[in-house]
Amino acid sequence: MSNTKKRIVILAEGKLDPFTAKTAAGVIRYRREEVIGVLAPSHAGRNIEEFLGTGSGVPIISSLDDVDDPDTLIIGIATPGGVMPDEWREYLREALRRGMEIVNGLHTFLSEDPELRELAAKHSATITDVRRPPNDLKVGMGAAASIDSKIILTVGSDCNIGKKIAAIEMNNEARKRGLDSVFVPTGQTGVMIEGRGIAIDRVISDFAAGAAERLVLEQKHREWIFVEGQGALLHPSYSGVTLSLMHGSMPGAMILCHQPTREFVRHTDFAIPSLRFLIELHESVMSPFRESQVVGISLNCLDMSPEDAAKEIERVESEFGLPTTDVIRYGASKLVDALEVFFQ
Amino acid sequence: MSNTKKRIVILAEGKLDPFTAKTAAGVIRYRREEVIGVLAPSHAGRNIEEFLGTGSGVPIISSLDDVDDPDTLIIGIATPGGVMPDEWREYLREALRRGMEIVNGLHTFLSEDPELRELAAKHSATITDVRRPPNDLKVGMGAAASIDSKIILTVGSDCNIGKKIAAIEMNNEARKRGLDSVFVPTGQTGVMIEGRGIAIDRVISDFAAGAAERLVLEQKHREWIFVEGQGALLHPSYSGVTLSLMHGSMPGAMILCHQPTREFVRHTDFAIPSLRFLIELHESVMSPFRESQVVGISLNCLDMSPEDAAKEIERVESEFGLPTTDVIRYGASKLVDALEVFFQ
Repeated sequence: MSNTKKRIVILAEGKLDPFTAKTAAGVIRYRREEVIGVLAPSHAGRNIEEFLGTGSGVPIISSLDDVDDPDTLIIGIATPGGVMPDEWREYLREALRRGMEIVNGLHTFLSEDPELRELAAKHSATITDVRRPPNDLKVGMGAAASIDSKIILTVGSDCNIGKKIAAIEMNNEARKRGLDSVFVPTGQTGVMIEGRGIAIDRVISDFAAGAAERLVLEQKHREWIFVEGQGALLHPSYSGVTLSLMHGSMPGAMILCHQPTREFVRHTDFAIPSLRFLIELHESVMSPFRESQVVGISLNCLDMSPEDAAKEIERVESEFGLPTTDVIRYGASKLVDALEVFFQ
Repeated sequence: MSNTKKRIVILAEGKLDPFTAKTAAGVIRYRREEVIGVLAPSHAGRNIEEFLGTGSGVPIISSLDDVDDPDTLIIGIATPGGVMPDEWREYLREALRRGMEIVNGLHTFLSEDPELRELAAKHSATITDVRRPPNDLKVGMGAAASIDSKIILTVGSDCNIGKKIAAIEMNNEARKRGLDSVFVPTGQTGVMIEGRGIAIDRVISDFAAGAAERLVLEQKHREWIFVEGQGALLHPSYSGVTLSLMHGSMPGAMILCHQPTREFVRHTDFAIPSLRFLIELHESVMSPFRESQVVGISLNCLDMSPEDAAKEIERVESEFGLPTTDVIRYGASKLVDALEVFFQ
């Protein structure tokens, strides 16, 4: 999937909650001008914004016929384990018959599906599996700890909590200030948004840190590098991905992402630990390699009233003495301010 | 590679140091009666024990002709990234021409090499890639935290430090005591020794914890489960593998492995942190899921005199108040004693 302007339809039939459809939400939020529809027949005619909290004006459609000249179909979901719902196959066939590009971020590579592959060949269509890792990865060596760039990694109290958005918003804010800054995508949605990057969670675990290291070293000519976080250091499913990313990217600063209303680690019965504990633990696991600090907190208040959100932000800020905001509601300037001071 | 009795030759030409040839060392130590030779022409006639510290009586040979009826050729090395030296190809060809089974633990799958594959087919030989993961793995869910078994994981201050040996020795000691105990291999050498298990470091990082979880849940009918550790929580190359294994296997007790003479994390310039810091950190990352403690310390004193080793063991034991031993020199009974008390 190149970065030239596309006419994108996002497939999300039956999966229109903001967690499952987080790929849809991310692409809509950051490639809004290219998205011409969300394919979700069960909800055709409804408003996508009410489901995803973003995407005003993007129509929910029941067929590819409902939009003009779509050229790209993005698989809009991120399921645990990343398997495609069987009932989506007919949508994929239809897209391939039209010669469209299918962009898939699931663990299951669609380009290896014999039927879809054959259809693609027949109709000169393309299947892009964004999670396919490069085949020349190496183990990480901690090399990112010694480059001059200011490296910032978003980390989280849980997965699916706003790490990608926080990193993108901070990078956008930094660029607005004229800083020499770049966003480094490390997950399927980030890769779809930027058209580059590696989905770290799809990499052989021995090479996951090496993949993160490569992504950072590629940008070492930049002054500011905002790295998209993955998983959570204390999520029992994905903690290894997170630690590989931390030790591969070697951030000098971290921004901790959290959702105040969330009590349990997603898909489990384990309670989310205190932010105090999380801050100390993230700093501890970095300490043998470089002094790295949690410099700010990004709260995801999507399910709170503006008043409650403002109150919670103030409370967290005063409890931890760390700049705190909700980057969706208030932007990332408070966090970038803090980072500029921290890295002075 | 099945568990029936074999006539094994281990290929280790040019790689006869105990770190690089750790697969050779592990197989010789624990399948001693099946190993009939080490193929390493440059050192033919020398004593394998002087190189690996184990394997008294195993001849170093210069050709497969030097031994009678070899049926298995094991690739005896573990390199970072796991690539096979090109100059070994002729040895592999020769083994296949003889109809032998090649057992390979490298990341590079030899069964996918067109030339070797064709040769194997022609001569009814077999190529077994022990690092090939099952293709139906799922993400971990922390489920091992709620089984009744006593789960013990070996962890380390560094990689290549004695985690596998400590786990095997403790399991052997437990079985000697009549306990219902099992060893769970999680790496290439462990899998070769036991003929079962999954090399966690070869698993897609999203599924690494799930693979560890599966291995433990398969043994939940056992009272004691000794899990082979991988990597190190603070090794920048492999930390993600380690944390996936910790959160997948959910140990109630950990044994910390360390080499007193080692100052730097292998292949890097990073200093090994203090044991105090390591103990606290391992317990911290487990604490949201279950109370897990470092219950003992296993010191690898292979490069110390008996007197220095004894002195260091005593010093560490008194500094941390934890039972400490060198399982190779003194056996694992002190550690199993401590575990029996801990789990009472």
